[in-house]
Amino acid sequence: MDYSEIDTPAVLIDLNIVQLNIKKFQSYCDSVGLKLRPHIKTHKIPMLAKLQLLEGAIGITCQKISEAEAMISEGGIDDVLIAYNILGEQKLDKLLALAKRVSLSVVADNMICIVGLSNAFEKSGMELSVLVECDTGANRCGVISPEEALDLANAIIKLPGIRFGGLMTYPPIGKSSKVDSFLRKTKLLIERHDIKVPVISVGGSPDMWNAEKLSVATEYRIGTYIYNDRSLISRGVCKEKDCALTVLVTVVSTPTKERAVVDAGSKVLTSDLSDLVGHGHIVGYPNLKISSLSEEHGCITCDGPTGLSIGQKLQIIPNHACVVSNMLDHVIFVSHEKFEFEQRVAARGQVW
Amino acid sequence: MDYSEIDTPAVLIDLNIVQLNIKKFQSYCDSVGLKLRPHIKTHKIPMLAKLQLLEGAIGITCQKISEAEAMISEGGIDDVLIAYNILGEQKLDKLLALAKRVSLSVVADNMICIVGLSNAFEKSGMELSVLVECDTGANRCGVISPEEALDLANAIIKLPGIRFGGLMTYPPIGKSSKVDSFLRKTKLLIERHDIKVPVISVGGSPDMWNAEKLSVATEYRIGTYIYNDRSLISRGVCKEKDCALTVLVTVVSTPTKERAVVDAGSKVLTSDLSDLVGHGHIVGYPNLKISSLSEEHGCITCDGPTGLSIGQKLQIIPNHACVVSNMLDHVIFVSHEKFEFEQRVAARGQVW
Repeated sequence: MDYSEIDTPAVLIDLNIVQLNIKKFQSYCDSVGLKLRPHIKTHKIPMLAKLQLLEGAIGITCQKISEAEAMISEGGIDDVLIAYNILGEQKLDKLLALAKRVSLSVVADNMICIVGLSNAFEKSGMELSVLVECDTGANRCGVISPEEALDLANAIIKLPGIRFGGLMTYPPIGKSSKVDSFLRKTKLLIERHDIKVPVISVGGSPDMWNAEKLSVATEYRIGTYIYNDRSLISRGVCKEKDCALTVLVTVVSTPTKERAVVDAGSKVLTSDLSDLVGHGHIVGYPNLKISSLSEEHGCITCDGPTGLSIGQKLQIIPNHACVVSNMLDHVIFVSHEKFEFEQRVAARGQVW
Repeated sequence: MDYSEIDTPAVLIDLNIVQLNIKKFQSYCDSVGLKLRPHIKTHKIPMLAKLQLLEGAIGITCQKISEAEAMISEGGIDDVLIAYNILGEQKLDKLLALAKRVSLSVVADNMICIVGLSNAFEKSGMELSVLVECDTGANRCGVISPEEALDLANAIIKLPGIRFGGLMTYPPIGKSSKVDSFLRKTKLLIERHDIKVPVISVGGSPDMWNAEKLSVATEYRIGTYIYNDRSLISRGVCKEKDCALTVLVTVVSTPTKERAVVDAGSKVLTSDLSDLVGHGHIVGYPNLKISSLSEEHGCITCDGPTGLSIGQKLQIIPNHACVVSNMLDHVIFVSHEKFEFEQRVAARGQVW
C-alpha cells in the first residue's frame, strides 16, 4: 500500500529514519561516555522503547506511571525512571505495584514528596531510588540552590524505604555551561557531606549534540530525537530528511487559488507552535504556510496561488512530534513510502 | 467520593451545569423558531448527544465519520449531518455504510466532492442529502459567491444518488448581518432557478445569543455551549458558573514562592490559546496565571506569592473545552462536587 491508499489524516512513522535516529545518538553517547535513557513520552510505543534498549540504552524515562505500566506490559523493559514528583495515595499505590516489577527510580524536589515516597515504601521491603530534581534555569520544577539539594539528599538518606539516587535536571536550552556549573557545585557539596551521587541525569533534544559539554552528567534523557520535528529543524539539530514522524493529509477544499484546506486540524497537529510561525512544514512546499487550524481543518495559504488540488495528499512535519503522536490511538509505520503496519500508541489517553 | 479523592489530572464534567446549558439554549432556539443540531465534536459522548436530543434537538452534527459511527453505536440517534467535504474511497465506503443506518447528510463546496458522493451513492438505492457549504467570511471551506453555490446546487440536482439539502456555513464571529446577507442572496438566487432550499444551517457558540439575527437560517449547529469555556467567558457568552468542564489538577511543586507547578500540561490542557493570555483560568484564583505548559507540567506564576501548597487540588477552566475533552480516554461526571461516574469519550482518538 503506498501513500495514495492510506486514509487521512494519518500519523506516519518512517521505520528506517527511526532506526537511524536511534543509532546515531546512541553512537554519540557511546563516544562521549554518556549513558542514554530515552524518554518514551515522544512515542509511547513499547516496540520503539525496545529498539532503543537493543541499541544500547540503559533503561527508559517516563513522565507518568501509566506510561511506565504500558511500556513494561509486554516484558523486555526492566529499568524505568519516572521523572516526576509523585504525590497522593492512588499514585503511590500504583508506584509500589510498579516497583515490584522493574528497577524503578523517581525524582523529587520537595519534602512532601519525599516523605510520601518513604511512607509508601517503608513497609514494602523495597528501597526506591529517588533523585533530587534541580532547577538549572528552565523555571519548571526543581530545587533552586545546591544547599536545598543537599538538604533533600540528607532527608532521603535518613528516611526508610528510599535511597538517594543522585541529581536530575530538565535543563534550559542552550545553557550547557550554566547547567554543568550548577550540577557540579551541587555534586561537590553533597559529596563533601560524605554522600555518594551515583547518577547525574540531564537531557533534552535541542542540546543533544552538545551533551558532551555537560561534563558532570552520567546519563542523558531524550525523547524527540527518535522522530525529530520542525522545531528541531529550526534549531539546526536535525534536517528535514531526519524527520521520522509526518502527518499525511488530503486537500479537501480549494475555495480560492490562494487558499487550500486539509483534513488535519488542531486535533491532530495540535496548537503547539513551539515558538514557530505556522502549524507545520509541508514537505516539498516550502512556500506554503499552514496559517490556521480549526479542530479538523488546516488552512494553507501562500503569497500567490497554492498550486494544490482537491484530493492531493501532502506530508506535514509538525512543529512538535511528541504532542502529535499523543493525538490518535494508532500510528502507521512506513518504509520506503509504503505501508508496513499499524501500531497502537499504547501509553496515550491515560490519566496517570 | 469528593474531589480530594479523585486522582489528577482529571477532566470533570458537571452534570447539572451540562443539563442547564442544554436546556437554556434549546429554550432560546425554540423561542426564536430555530431548529437546533448540536455538534458532538465538543463532548464525543453518545449519552450527552441523547440528552441534547431529548431536550428537543432535531439531530446531531459530526465532523468526522468515526464520530458519527461512535454516536450511533448505542442506538437512539438517527439524524446526522457530517459537516465536512468527504473525499476518497475509504471514507465514501464508510459513508455508504453509515447512510444505511441513519438519516444522513453531508456538505460539499466543490465538484470533485459532489461527483465522488454521487458515484458512491448512485447504485445504492439511497439518496444522500448534500448541503452546499458557503464561506461567509470565516475563510475556511465554502464557496465564496452565491453564483458558485447555484452552480453546485444545479450539479447536485442533476447527478444521481444525491439531492440538494440546502446551504451550510461556518460563520465568522460577530458578523451576523454579513452572514445573513450572503445566505439570503444565495437562497434567493437558487430559488429563482426553481430549486428549493430546504435547510439553511448556521452555527457557532460565540454568537449563539444572536442566532435570531440570522433571519434566513433554519437550523443552528453548536458545540461548545454544552460545556462552555474560558474563551466564551472572555467573549461575554457565558459566566464562570456556566462552565461544566474543568480540569482537576494537583500542585506537585512550589520551587519558589512565586511559582507553582501542577500535573496538567499540554497533553491535557492543550496549547490552544484561543487568542487569550495564559493556558486557562484557575477557579477561585483570578490573580494566578498558567503562564507556560510542558507536556505534563503547568507552570503557575503570579505577581506576588502564589499562596499554593504542594498537594493542593485546583480546578482549571480551559481556554477551549472541545480540544480538552479530546485528550483523555475517560472523563469524570460530577454533581455537587462529588464523583458520579466515569465515562469513555467514545469518539476520540479515531482517525476518520
